[in-house]
Amino acid sequence: MIKQLDQLLDLAKTGQPQRIALAAAADDDALSALDRAVGLGIAEGILVGDPSEIGKIAQKIGIDLKKYTVCPAENDSRAALEAVGLVSSGKADLVMKGRLSTSILLKAVLDKRVGLRTEHTLSHVAIAELKGTERLLFITDAAMNIEPTLAQRASIIRNAATIARCLGIEKPRVALLTASDKILEKDLRTSEAAVLSKEGERGQLGEIFIDGPMTLASALSPEAASLNGLKGEVAGQADVLMVSHIEAGNVLYKGMVYFAGALVAGILAGAKAPVILTSRADSDESKLYSIALGAAVASKSCAKR
Amino acid sequence: MIKQLDQLLDLAKTGQPQRIALAAAADDDALSALDRAVGLGIAEGILVGDPSEIGKIAQKIGIDLKKYTVCPAENDSRAALEAVGLVSSGKADLVMKGRLSTSILLKAVLDKRVGLRTEHTLSHVAIAELKGTERLLFITDAAMNIEPTLAQRASIIRNAATIARCLGIEKPRVALLTASDKILEKDLRTSEAAVLSKEGERGQLGEIFIDGPMTLASALSPEAASLNGLKGEVAGQADVLMVSHIEAGNVLYKGMVYFAGALVAGILAGAKAPVILTSRADSDESKLYSIALGAAVASKSCAKR
Repeated sequence: MIKQLDQLLDLAKTGQPQRIALAAAADDDALSALDRAVGLGIAEGILVGDPSEIGKIAQKIGIDLKKYTVCPAENDSRAALEAVGLVSSGKADLVMKGRLSTSILLKAVLDKRVGLRTEHTLSHVAIAELKGTERLLFITDAAMNIEPTLAQRASIIRNAATIARCLGIEKPRVALLTASDKILEKDLRTSEAAVLSKEGERGQLGEIFIDGPMTLASALSPEAASLNGLKGEVAGQADVLMVSHIEAGNVLYKGMVYFAGALVAGILAGAKAPVILTSRADSDESKLYSIALGAAVASKSCAKR
Repeated sequence: MIKQLDQLLDLAKTGQPQRIALAAAADDDALSALDRAVGLGIAEGILVGDPSEIGKIAQKIGIDLKKYTVCPAENDSRAALEAVGLVSSGKADLVMKGRLSTSILLKAVLDKRVGLRTEHTLSHVAIAELKGTERLLFITDAAMNIEPTLAQRASIIRNAATIARCLGIEKPRVALLTASDKILEKDLRTSEAAVLSKEGERGQLGEIFIDGPMTLASALSPEAASLNGLKGEVAGQADVLMVSHIEAGNVLYKGMVYFAGALVAGILAGAKAPVILTSRADSDESKLYSIALGAAVASKSCAKR
């Protein structure tokens, strides 16, 4: 079981280097992160975009383009469709966002002809490593679904559990976070958590432990869980923290980074292959870990469900 | 301007000791926190509840009841009404929760005859002190309003600003947190933040700086704010973090405590006097700071608005 994010690098190295199609590749940040992954033997790179722009950036940041395949595309939409198409036609294993807007990349991922759409909801899975803690914490969804329906949440839970299993957590402990440990008539989210919790107990969400509604304290602290009267396999030892609304997910995820200096990695799950969406605000380490996470998940049979 | 929570003790000491009515006072935790405040000259205590139970607890934790007035009440509802009534009749300055459920105390606070109701919305204001930061962070609402309307949010903002002013922040910087720095058609909260933001700019929310929608990163980090293209008086230097939903507030507040070891204090604002609602999960320091916060606010003309 992986307990630190740098172990993602080892995990990704155990498989074949994964072929990553970088959409709109003329991006300093994404290209240098990809180059580090290539240097570590985790990835091979296919750079999709304007060849002359890519050449300029490569020269500027000192990257040898001989290691890469360059695949021309005239604009962002074409670059996104090309990159995604490389994955769906088996010429690449993964797609990664370069210098283009997330919405353009997602449109290509969801494209009915060349896209990577499945019956699952696409969702963001973040993983945080906190100093002094013994395990990684999964957070979902901090970046993709604004206020998912119950059916979408079931899919989001499965996505997170799939990633957790790829990292060696065979039966992930999923906490459905709310502002109360009790079901409150006035707070619909607490009832919805109860529904999902029971759905999980009935085996409808795959091999997981699940419980909720549950506050953050009860999810993570055995003392708080006991004080609040919560028992079972999840309280006090959750692996996956699932929120009901993106605002809570975002605050939780970014709070860990800003208040506690957490290291993080994240990918989009639920498509035929993981989608790597690093952003400029991420640290260099975070970007590399996200690539390693994507590569590890893409190379493994654990990703099947 | 107060920059650390222990300065609340000094601030509270500058005024007269505040008379605190402890509702259902037979509670180890609340009583010992109150006794510390009494010892520091911040408070005087009126213990409302079953005298024999109060006597037993006082003996158990070694508190001298001669320092206190004991006011008998036969059950929790009566204790709550009595304690609140002492404040509304001018015999006490503040009410504090003892061993009774929050809903019973709130029912008394909102009681039309003896209660402390104003035209304002009652809201929770939490203050966090994080290691290595230069200022206190106000979080609202992490505990009281589940999903407030725009009108309620306006009141919640005013409540938080009032408390911030009592602590010497003359024109508090209020960030309306969302999961995006942009207004997204799909995420109504971002539009609502824009509305409140403009309302604040028009001077409708009192003496504050306000801006939103804004992510946590943009609210707190000048670098992130600049990277995300945010300017103005709030981005990167927010004093008050306001969320749209209690789940986000709770995760933010508890996350600071659990992930970053933040010290916290909190009170309910918006009533005629602050309401002190400590909970068992709070540390002893946190309980004392909450009492000091309530006392400082109650004693000051800053609380007028």
